Amino acid sequence: MKKSVTCVAPINIAVVKYWGKNDEEFNIPLNSSISLTLDVENLCTQTTLTLDTSFGKDELWLNGLQQDISKNNRIQRCLKEARRLAEKNSNGKELSDISCKIVSTNNFPTAAGLASSASGYACLAKCLGEIFNLEVDLSSLARLGSGSACRSMDGGFVKWNKGVSPVDSLAEQIVPEDHWSELRCLILVVSNKQKSVPSTEGMRRSAETSELLKLRINNIVESRIAEMEGAIIGKNFEKFAKLTMKESNQLHAICQDTYPPITPPYMNSTSHKIVKFITQYNELEIKAAYTFDAGSNAVLFTLDKNMKELLSTLMKYFSIERKDIVSSSELDLSINESIDIKDVNISLRCLEQVIVTKGGKGATVISNAS
Amino acid sequence: MKKSVTCVAPINIAVVKYWGKNDEEFNIPLNSSISLTLDVENLCTQTTLTLDTSFGKDELWLNGLQQDISKNNRIQRCLKEARRLAEKNSNGKELSDISCKIVSTNNFPTAAGLASSASGYACLAKCLGEIFNLEVDLSSLARLGSGSACRSMDGGFVKWNKGVSPVDSLAEQIVPEDHWSELRCLILVVSNKQKSVPSTEGMRRSAETSELLKLRINNIVESRIAEMEGAIIGKNFEKFAKLTMKESNQLHAICQDTYPPITPPYMNSTSHKIVKFITQYNELEIKAAYTFDAGSNAVLFTLDKNMKELLSTLMKYFSIERKDIVSSSELDLSINESIDIKDVNISLRCLEQVIVTKGGKGATVISNAS
Repeated sequence: MKKSVTCVAPINIAVVKYWGKNDEEFNIPLNSSISLTLDVENLCTQTTLTLDTSFGKDELWLNGLQQDISKNNRIQRCLKEARRLAEKNSNGKELSDISCKIVSTNNFPTAAGLASSASGYACLAKCLGEIFNLEVDLSSLARLGSGSACRSMDGGFVKWNKGVSPVDSLAEQIVPEDHWSELRCLILVVSNKQKSVPSTEGMRRSAETSELLKLRINNIVESRIAEMEGAIIGKNFEKFAKLTMKESNQLHAICQDTYPPITPPYMNSTSHKIVKFITQYNELEIKAAYTFDAGSNAVLFTLDKNMKELLSTLMKYFSIERKDIVSSSELDLSINESIDIKDVNISLRCLEQVIVTKGGKGATVISNAS
Repeated sequence: MKKSVTCVAPINIAVVKYWGKNDEEFNIPLNSSISLTLDVENLCTQTTLTLDTSFGKDELWLNGLQQDISKNNRIQRCLKEARRLAEKNSNGKELSDISCKIVSTNNFPTAAGLASSASGYACLAKCLGEIFNLEVDLSSLARLGSGSACRSMDGGFVKWNKGVSPVDSLAEQIVPEDHWSELRCLILVVSNKQKSVPSTEGMRRSAETSELLKLRINNIVESRIAEMEGAIIGKNFEKFAKLTMKESNQLHAICQDTYPPITPPYMNSTSHKIVKFITQYNELEIKAAYTFDAGSNAVLFTLDKNMKELLSTLMKYFSIERKDIVSSSELDLSINESIDIKDVNISLRCLEQVIVTKGGKGATVISNAS
């Protein structure tokens, strides 16, 4: 007996940040969060899950290399939970005993060094749900692998409600990807990254030592979630951009309040140059927003109408060459639309790559064969 | 009629930070703060105040150059308040009508670029109090010029109680400078500083935009003030050091939460290297603490017994030469006591100067002539 399913899943970028866990085993967050799911064309994980009675044990192959998963708690939690749920189904009992072969590849540009756990675990959860015919909210299965993976199950803007237990900490779509189709996303890949602190460890250290984190959770996040939902539904770019930047600033304020501080390795001097660039670029009108996660790369948001101007101005100030730009659609940069901005003087080449993308759909089954 | 008085006044380094004003005109802070007054030998302002009926108007000479004080609100507020208080005295009325000549010099190493407003206004307040025989708490007069100047009126560790009105926002000594005579202070002067944001402007921007600042004021500072007083009175270096670092981290977390963020220009990549260095240096035992104000320079605290080791380890990792060290006492660095620390690799010369100092006495009259 042999059964096989292939899925793709996207990454997502948080605009209201997830930082801190209430429960490390089940990845229950201290606060709700909101993200945009990105188009899978440039950044996705593709996974083929095969059940075959001839396999002796579960196997994982990642980008062509076999991984030892015996001590990988995140994978084991997902597989165990999927099998527990499968046993409730009519024919699930027999399937759940069969070993899985998971073959997964990321199509991320190699240089990017982008985190792939969100797309990876969303893809695995989608495969497991499909192969075992699970009739549950798969975002909770993805969440067991990586908290933010739950937000990659749906497309467009997604809210992860913190919930209070493993069964109600779920992601839900706010609006689909075509609701705000003018929105664009630029991932600025920073060169010379330092060895970083894994986000799980960073969150733990913040939760243990940052008094400001507790105050943020209890006093700030809920109203920002509501405000952000309003900005997204109303497609109010200025409101969306300001709140996105303030949320990024506050996440890194928490990292700075952590003892010892974790900024750097998270935001570094290039990241701060990007903040200054965007601040000055927005001087007369808010046309772009930055956001940073547990690393030094920036993600920028802008509207389609300002895309060329922003990209060519970035190219000018950060000495980016055409060959370093990865784009999903044909991009016409023959007309240089760069503008001059004040007080920004960046001479060194500190960005390695720019990936131009937009919102997209969630994890998807692309084939299912028995 | 001619009357003249000369005073010296020290700078001070906050260990519980002052950030945010409740009243900009009277410099009433949003929270109480604690600082150590530094020895005047290497860092002080010396001011001679002369009253002479032959002067036509008030004059200020700073480091040999005459300044236009007609639009300098800070100076004008101090002079006006001193004259108002003088008029209450027996012979004050006639003195208060006479013009002042203020001649002020700072003995700070030129390269340091250290802020001199605290020592400057403390020195002016001391001169005014002496010349007009003012029988009031002079810390409130100094505060009108620069908030943190009130803490330079006393020696040793000083607490500035926020108060609720101009008359009760006053500084008071916690312990004199000889209480914890083993404590040492190293000022690390960072090279290539960016143009900074003046602290008054930074505080205003934080008070207007940082939600975390409000939460810090209402929930965190008071307990830290009590904890810090305990650590100082008990001479508990580990407790003092941790709290000092956490306070510095939190000030810069607030600066990062400010919109747009002010870190940099405050802490820059060199500042972050110093934080990492101290974090690693303290790995087995807390032997040093860092603190940063509205700039990129660091101030380190250590105990006398660890002084040579810390300084020679700094010299090694930051390529500091003997000629760049300014010290009040004869410093024997012939025996290199540097240690190896992990994961710190600083190749570029990013520190310009190290000033080695300790706690000292407050603003002092050095001559009074009629």
